Amino acid sequence: MRLFRERGYDRTTMRAIAQEAGVSVGNAYYYFAGKEHLIQGFYDRIAAEHRAAVREVLDRETDLTARLTGVLKAWLDVATPYHEFAVQFFKNAADPDSPLSPFSAESEHARAEAIDVHREVLAGSGARVPEELRDVLPELMWLSQMGLVLYWIFDRTEGRERSYRLAERGARLTARGVTLSRFRVLRPLVHDVHELFTDFLPGMARVLPDPARAEGAHASADASAPE
Amino acid sequence: MRLFRERGYDRTTMRAIAQEAGVSVGNAYYYFAGKEHLIQGFYDRIAAEHRAAVREVLDRETDLTARLTGVLKAWLDVATPYHEFAVQFFKNAADPDSPLSPFSAESEHARAEAIDVHREVLAGSGARVPEELRDVLPELMWLSQMGLVLYWIFDRTEGRERSYRLAERGARLTARGVTLSRFRVLRPLVHDVHELFTDFLPGMARVLPDPARAEGAHASADASAPE
Repeated sequence: MRLFRERGYDRTTMRAIAQEAGVSVGNAYYYFAGKEHLIQGFYDRIAAEHRAAVREVLDRETDLTARLTGVLKAWLDVATPYHEFAVQFFKNAADPDSPLSPFSAESEHARAEAIDVHREVLAGSGARVPEELRDVLPELMWLSQMGLVLYWIFDRTEGRERSYRLAERGARLTARGVTLSRFRVLRPLVHDVHELFTDFLPGMARVLPDPARAEGAHASADASAPE
Repeated sequence: MRLFRERGYDRTTMRAIAQEAGVSVGNAYYYFAGKEHLIQGFYDRIAAEHRAAVREVLDRETDLTARLTGVLKAWLDVATPYHEFAVQFFKNAADPDSPLSPFSAESEHARAEAIDVHREVLAGSGARVPEELRDVLPELMWLSQMGLVLYWIFDRTEGRERSYRLAERGARLTARGVTLSRFRVLRPLVHDVHELFTDFLPGMARVLPDPARAEGAHASADASAPE
């Protein structure tokens, strides 16, 4: 991470990383097939740190807005040391077809972990959630977290103060959306929004409960593979 | 545009542009204070071309989904020659604090034009829209168009086929959201979503209907001013 931060992602070679870690290049490649896989390891670490960081708020709060706010702020806390890296790394991750995208099939593990956190946010709250939306809402909540991440990357305020405010406002808004989603008239819209994301973001369909969803030759092909 | 496309935005100088246009550097600077202003001119041109391109569909269709689909597809048509440029230019425009961002104060003219198109999409449709949302919905519709633009930038399919499909699906979804927004229980949510964007995206508050709104140091100051 230090090398990536100092030299930028594109200019950091596996050779340099191996040298810095005091291992042979062959050894480095034994553990990581390439730089992209190092980044996946980084994503997994962030996800695990975040999971640990939200424990306290999820054990304490039952209100949906409070739980969601806590989870979003915990993410900002955990990510703080990597802000500089995130800024220069952004152009690699913004492409949804890149393995480095948070929506890629390659990022599935970290993404599934992060969505699980939102599943727990919802399940442990007092919010009444219709059965049919129980798998859909945590994914949409995670998508709103991705919106916050995007905003945070470009946030130049002292201590990312605006991102923390957006976390609060966004959490209130998302919680309100979740509460409204129990109205029958709205459920089709929630499903449609969710389907739009899963159909158009490669890798997203992977975490869907229904593995039978057949898609064509493109990116969502593996997404439809049975879990 | 050709120079930008060939050399990339960052590596194209005003000097090179002036030379290519057969004018003196001083003359080039007389018309455009810098490269950013050339891009604003480009944004304005796209907006004007789009406005002309939607004429036919807006004169013919009254159904909201059909109008919106036509407007989004017309944008994809108009933008086709600039796809390659958009890909490499993206990292400059993605930063909401950059004057090159579609959300910046500097892009206001092109943005206001684009939002006007959506105002017309809505006004000429059969959709019943509550008075209180008449100014808010066109901006949210434009935001969904920005989502399509982001997707299009990374679309590598032949003829941007997936972007055209997203235009159709997105238009249906947005039209459904517009239709649902007349329910009283939902209106506060629509207002909140809109306020979130205007408070957190610099420049967005500018296009709000109230011209008395003082422009403070940043966008959120005016967004919180009483209506």
